Amino acid sequence: MMYGHFDDNKREYVITRPDTPWPWINYLGSDDFFSLISNSGGGYSFYKDARLRRITRYRYNDVPMDGNGRLFYVKDGDSAWSPGWRPTRTELDSYECRHGMGYTQIRSAKQGVEAELLFFVPVGADCEIQRLVLRNTTAGPKRLKLFALTEFCLWNALDDMTNFQRNLSTGEVRVEGSAIYHVTEYRERRNHFSFYAVNTAVSGYETDREAFTGRYAGYDQPEAVIRGSLGNTVTSGWWPVAAFHLDIDLAPGEERALVFVLGYVENPPEEKWSSPGVPDTARARALIAQFDTDAKVEEAHAALRAHWDGLLSRYTVKTGDERLDRMVNVWNQYQCMVTFLVARSASYFESGIGRGIGFRDTSQDLLGCMHQVPDSARQRLFDVASTQLPDGGAWHQYQPLTKRGNADVGDGFNDDPLWLILGVAAYLKETGDWGFLDVPVPFDNDPSNAAPLFEHLNRSFLHVVENRGPHGLPLIGRADWNDCLNLNCFSTDPNDSFQTAGTREGRIAESLLIAGMFVLIGREFVEICRRTGRDGDALSAQEHIERMRAAILQHGWDGEWFLRAYDAAGAKVGSRECQDGQIFIESNAFCAMAEIGAEQGLPVRALDAVRERLDTKYGIVIHDPPYRGYHVELGEVSSYPPGYKENAGVLCHNNPWIMIAECIAGRPEQAFSYYRKICPAYLDDIQELHRMEPYVYSQMIAGKAAQRQGEAKNSWLTGTAAWNLVAITQWILGVRPDWDGLRIEPCLPRQCRRVEITRVFRGCTYRIEVRNSGRGRAEQRVLVDGAVIPSKVVPPGKPGATINVVVEG
Amino acid sequence: MMYGHFDDNKREYVITRPDTPWPWINYLGSDDFFSLISNSGGGYSFYKDARLRRITRYRYNDVPMDGNGRLFYVKDGDSAWSPGWRPTRTELDSYECRHGMGYTQIRSAKQGVEAELLFFVPVGADCEIQRLVLRNTTAGPKRLKLFALTEFCLWNALDDMTNFQRNLSTGEVRVEGSAIYHVTEYRERRNHFSFYAVNTAVSGYETDREAFTGRYAGYDQPEAVIRGSLGNTVTSGWWPVAAFHLDIDLAPGEERALVFVLGYVENPPEEKWSSPGVPDTARARALIAQFDTDAKVEEAHAALRAHWDGLLSRYTVKTGDERLDRMVNVWNQYQCMVTFLVARSASYFESGIGRGIGFRDTSQDLLGCMHQVPDSARQRLFDVASTQLPDGGAWHQYQPLTKRGNADVGDGFNDDPLWLILGVAAYLKETGDWGFLDVPVPFDNDPSNAAPLFEHLNRSFLHVVENRGPHGLPLIGRADWNDCLNLNCFSTDPNDSFQTAGTREGRIAESLLIAGMFVLIGREFVEICRRTGRDGDALSAQEHIERMRAAILQHGWDGEWFLRAYDAAGAKVGSRECQDGQIFIESNAFCAMAEIGAEQGLPVRALDAVRERLDTKYGIVIHDPPYRGYHVELGEVSSYPPGYKENAGVLCHNNPWIMIAECIAGRPEQAFSYYRKICPAYLDDIQELHRMEPYVYSQMIAGKAAQRQGEAKNSWLTGTAAWNLVAITQWILGVRPDWDGLRIEPCLPRQCRRVEITRVFRGCTYRIEVRNSGRGRAEQRVLVDGAVIPSKVVPPGKPGATINVVVEG
Repeated sequence: MMYGHFDDNKREYVITRPDTPWPWINYLGSDDFFSLISNSGGGYSFYKDARLRRITRYRYNDVPMDGNGRLFYVKDGDSAWSPGWRPTRTELDSYECRHGMGYTQIRSAKQGVEAELLFFVPVGADCEIQRLVLRNTTAGPKRLKLFALTEFCLWNALDDMTNFQRNLSTGEVRVEGSAIYHVTEYRERRNHFSFYAVNTAVSGYETDREAFTGRYAGYDQPEAVIRGSLGNTVTSGWWPVAAFHLDIDLAPGEERALVFVLGYVENPPEEKWSSPGVPDTARARALIAQFDTDAKVEEAHAALRAHWDGLLSRYTVKTGDERLDRMVNVWNQYQCMVTFLVARSASYFESGIGRGIGFRDTSQDLLGCMHQVPDSARQRLFDVASTQLPDGGAWHQYQPLTKRGNADVGDGFNDDPLWLILGVAAYLKETGDWGFLDVPVPFDNDPSNAAPLFEHLNRSFLHVVENRGPHGLPLIGRADWNDCLNLNCFSTDPNDSFQTAGTREGRIAESLLIAGMFVLIGREFVEICRRTGRDGDALSAQEHIERMRAAILQHGWDGEWFLRAYDAAGAKVGSRECQDGQIFIESNAFCAMAEIGAEQGLPVRALDAVRERLDTKYGIVIHDPPYRGYHVELGEVSSYPPGYKENAGVLCHNNPWIMIAECIAGRPEQAFSYYRKICPAYLDDIQELHRMEPYVYSQMIAGKAAQRQGEAKNSWLTGTAAWNLVAITQWILGVRPDWDGLRIEPCLPRQCRRVEITRVFRGCTYRIEVRNSGRGRAEQRVLVDGAVIPSKVVPPGKPGATINVVVEG
Repeated sequence: MMYGHFDDNKREYVITRPDTPWPWINYLGSDDFFSLISNSGGGYSFYKDARLRRITRYRYNDVPMDGNGRLFYVKDGDSAWSPGWRPTRTELDSYECRHGMGYTQIRSAKQGVEAELLFFVPVGADCEIQRLVLRNTTAGPKRLKLFALTEFCLWNALDDMTNFQRNLSTGEVRVEGSAIYHVTEYRERRNHFSFYAVNTAVSGYETDREAFTGRYAGYDQPEAVIRGSLGNTVTSGWWPVAAFHLDIDLAPGEERALVFVLGYVENPPEEKWSSPGVPDTARARALIAQFDTDAKVEEAHAALRAHWDGLLSRYTVKTGDERLDRMVNVWNQYQCMVTFLVARSASYFESGIGRGIGFRDTSQDLLGCMHQVPDSARQRLFDVASTQLPDGGAWHQYQPLTKRGNADVGDGFNDDPLWLILGVAAYLKETGDWGFLDVPVPFDNDPSNAAPLFEHLNRSFLHVVENRGPHGLPLIGRADWNDCLNLNCFSTDPNDSFQTAGTREGRIAESLLIAGMFVLIGREFVEICRRTGRDGDALSAQEHIERMRAAILQHGWDGEWFLRAYDAAGAKVGSRECQDGQIFIESNAFCAMAEIGAEQGLPVRALDAVRERLDTKYGIVIHDPPYRGYHVELGEVSSYPPGYKENAGVLCHNNPWIMIAECIAGRPEQAFSYYRKICPAYLDDIQELHRMEPYVYSQMIAGKAAQRQGEAKNSWLTGTAAWNLVAITQWILGVRPDWDGLRIEPCLPRQCRRVEITRVFRGCTYRIEVRNSGRGRAEQRVLVDGAVIPSKVVPPGKPGATINVVVEG
């Protein structure tokens, strides 16, 4: 069964059936107001922080699935239908949903009425626009009743779903004409409210959910819609909603456009009230007025498209492979930006409750959008570094609204600090903004201990140096990148969190992943030291790196591949000596990328072992064999059923590490083969099996041991997006920011004979043509303006310059 | 609209329409396995701890409301209906739900098929029995298809509703014949599983929720039922359920009984597996076999009824007022027992997530079931005291599964310690078990610092002594009984919890409620000291009490009533000087009960002020006038909309304090008038307005300032149950355990001319007849076996003795 296809010209994914295997969603918003929207209009909105400032209520794990969101009902005679199919699920005469860059359109028709819905969050405005056009395509008049409903969340999403003894008594709304204000808790400490408004007079409204649906009915058959009128109730407690009833009379061929606005407003404390007890709605009314005509909406939509035109113009490619082009030019970049904006907080798998912004996560995510929004990345790096602890460790996560470390999760994830170095290095290479290193940044958000950003990198580096185990390898702490490898946890209590139980300070268990990272990312640190005149630091760091390299060679090579770790008893993890979990992807990827033991050919041997033992039809599984039983000394990794998640699933995040290592090893065909296996655009013909959106990466694809091999989960918010973009754009296509310019060193498969790449870099436009004969990097020649240059690094010219590059070989 | 009525003979509440104003629920379970069940079969089950060990999944805040639970579908030809009305909501030919003592029955009929459902948790077994009888009342044969489904929760209820990136990959089941085992995470740290089984061969099964409902359908119209067959899927991740399909052929007049068992099993670690990877189900099979015939089920049901006969036989009354009798004899005692068993953890308002067992809560709850289960109360007192801190303060809550203090909430609620004294005193008076005071009990669950229970009481008492403010009154800390009076919080951040933000150690803000409690409950401590030969302690305590009494008289009397508190700036709270919140119920109740200033008539003046200013048609509001705006110096109390909850709602919990005070003041008519106003059986004619179950108390009834005045919320789990039982049984009916025997001192309104009470106390049965002339207590004479006794305290006789008491006057 096929559910949709790409429209490359419009940069849209077109969904042609509403009953997709999973709600296929899109994200709206580029600043502070964000919405998730499914192909039937499900989803929710939040302001900055999906946990603390949830605007509309969403029910995860709902039955019926995806049961809440933007609810529209068109009542035509006695029957009602929904332009988005849900909630009524009335069979439609036609249906199409188009997910574009920051907007979603749904077009449908029923009984001679056409509906066009456009949803987007305007650039620079804290609201979601919902424009509905209704069109009468019959030869007779149509008298329609339109109902539109949004259900408010009482702000704190966790409290909203657990604390009913309070929350069912606090709900408050205000109705003013065609606007309904959700003002719960505004009377006390909140200086913000939300609203839902429409740009025309309404025939009725409802603010009490139960009065709308009826007591035990669902949103699919609400009593108010069946009855055909709303009760004009101003709710007091229970479940506040905003619903409108509009009477729409359409002559034959006539159409009518309506603009609904779901908005959020913060008032300065001194402008909280317009009169005692009456919230000041001036800002809301101004926001509504900004979008109260169809023309204004069109203009805002155009501005949004222009915004994305800009973002997507900084790296474009033409390869002749339309799937590759659409991923690189559009969808992979788009996913990177979304993941950067909302971090891991809110998707159809991340409930917005458990995770804010991860130290490690966001340091990687920004690799995927550094070329698009270096200034935002700089700000994020500042925020992240501000949650670093004085000893160089880090809060593992922080809350976006408060930018404070999350004490529930704490620290002790010993790979965290190194990712900060990688992120800052990427920023420096992209921008050349070396002054950033001198900016004072607090530790643990305490302004009194601020130190130049460089010092944060230094402590990051030293945190690894100072936390090494018996083999001289880095201690793993609570876990490294693999959050499920908990070597100091030893939990037997199912009420424990694997990530926070046990000790974070075990002095035995060591990670070969962190060791590989240290060598690879340590290089960046050395270079940063050198380029800022810190020669002593550079020398010392280089010595530490050499020592680590030696330790890896001495204690980290298992004979055919790199070990994964030593556990808290000093036993090997990821060794042929093990019964299960003999070989892991992560340490082999990083040690290969760091070219450890290259002189003996170890990287290639490790990569061959990965291919032989971990590669599958649907990607490279994270380890093999899966753990069949629980290993108290390994933790969560052994808790999943075999083939799922970190127990031998395909973790798409680390597949590109292998692609990069294959590029470094000079094996383009293998690199590209891995790329295609997990790349959504190439999986378009297995939509039913893959289940997740075919236009974005998922975190996980069930591995070969799983009952549902090939089924993806946890789509959208995953470091997968950034790393795949890095792998394809910087390594396979080979256009990579470097300290002194743009390094151009493609590693293309033979099928890509001629590739054109446009890259905007430090104010210049590079127009790159690759003439690929498949002979390999060694024989590549780089020509700038027709002349061969000695290095593959092409320095930028004057701002605004265009640099023409040809790569032959 | 009327939805039901009482059946006193059967001790059942009979619900006659399924579309009650709120799901009217019952509780099943008396040991460790508990279920909530609504009048249409909604609800869920848990083992010991509603947060950490949730067995079935429930969706709070669901649309449709109460959408999950015990799902049955009878497919008769092409149409399907549910014996409990939900989930299909097909109109039934007849419907009746009977909530009894620990069981619920639903009878319904459709198209000539009668269904009888019986639900209960057997005494001593960790399972819920669901017996379904189907009967063909037509003249022709019936070929029915029956579908039954239960949806499993992945154990930790909070994680289950937030952590989908993991949980949608972990679900595992095993199917063995007519039993489906839910074994998620059994592979790792869980040694427990649940199961759903039926005592006959099945025609099919389903374990994947989505395969049952279809992708976007709800439980109301599941595709499998429409299709008429199940898919026999063994799920792997996503949403594990257990569903059975049974073909039921019934001849005219024939009936068939089926027994479904939802069970929970813990295996010893050494008996976890029957073979590698195969969970040992022996215990489950034994449990299933215990109830695999109709006769066994009947026997278990009879045992349950006998269990409740025993519990309810220890205090019975006959007053001639059937509403009073049914509350005292049945429903109030029943609610007390339920509240004691599940504390405040799990109701249709308490989601099982936020609260475990409260230190203060449970110390009061056990007052309501001390006469029924003194041994259980003793154990609970031990558990509670074990979470006391060494300084006499206390963890405000603890988790039932771990019995450890809940660090999220912490300590600093300065009334907590005193309630422990009250609870222990009630236990001593009920049992005479003075040895309990010598039992070593740890502080903060640390066995190394265990001290005799007496020492816990001593530190409780001294905690107040040592934490007094500028007026010599008790410091309030985070809050006293009124969790919403947060005088040291000063929160302006809506992300704060009022209960945990700010300081708990303010040295200014004082509570007149704690002051009154100290005088009243301090008396019990003095008596405990005296009776255990601690005369020095008694004397010293008495002096502290006198000093407190003096401080109250000097600084706590506002002219017409007692102040409520001094805030952190030393300003009065609950004073005529205040604009809002001029008078509060709590301090007036406790100071009046403690008879502070009795010589000047202050208690009566305070009670008159309460009547004049706080009494309403639907009960006594907690304060008046309501706070119109937020007071940062008062906290959550001013956060609710006026008339709701702690901002001038009727908090039913403290109404009985006033009833008791009125009894002490010798005003029976007033006491009984208050009793009737909030007593559910007397509200039976305003079911639609009251909304909550008419057979149990709710925590709150919206007050006079509320838009929905008279509407109740937060039914079932509230200290209201215990305190109303104490007020009616011990003060108005006047049969009250005392140190040396049963004190018999009725304070009856004139309407109760002749009252018979049977009370089992310390092994004796007291048969009490009250001949009430309404002349008041002073003229009452107590006759034992026909002879007037000098005191009103009737000592127990030999075990098994019957003591005949007559009270005249």
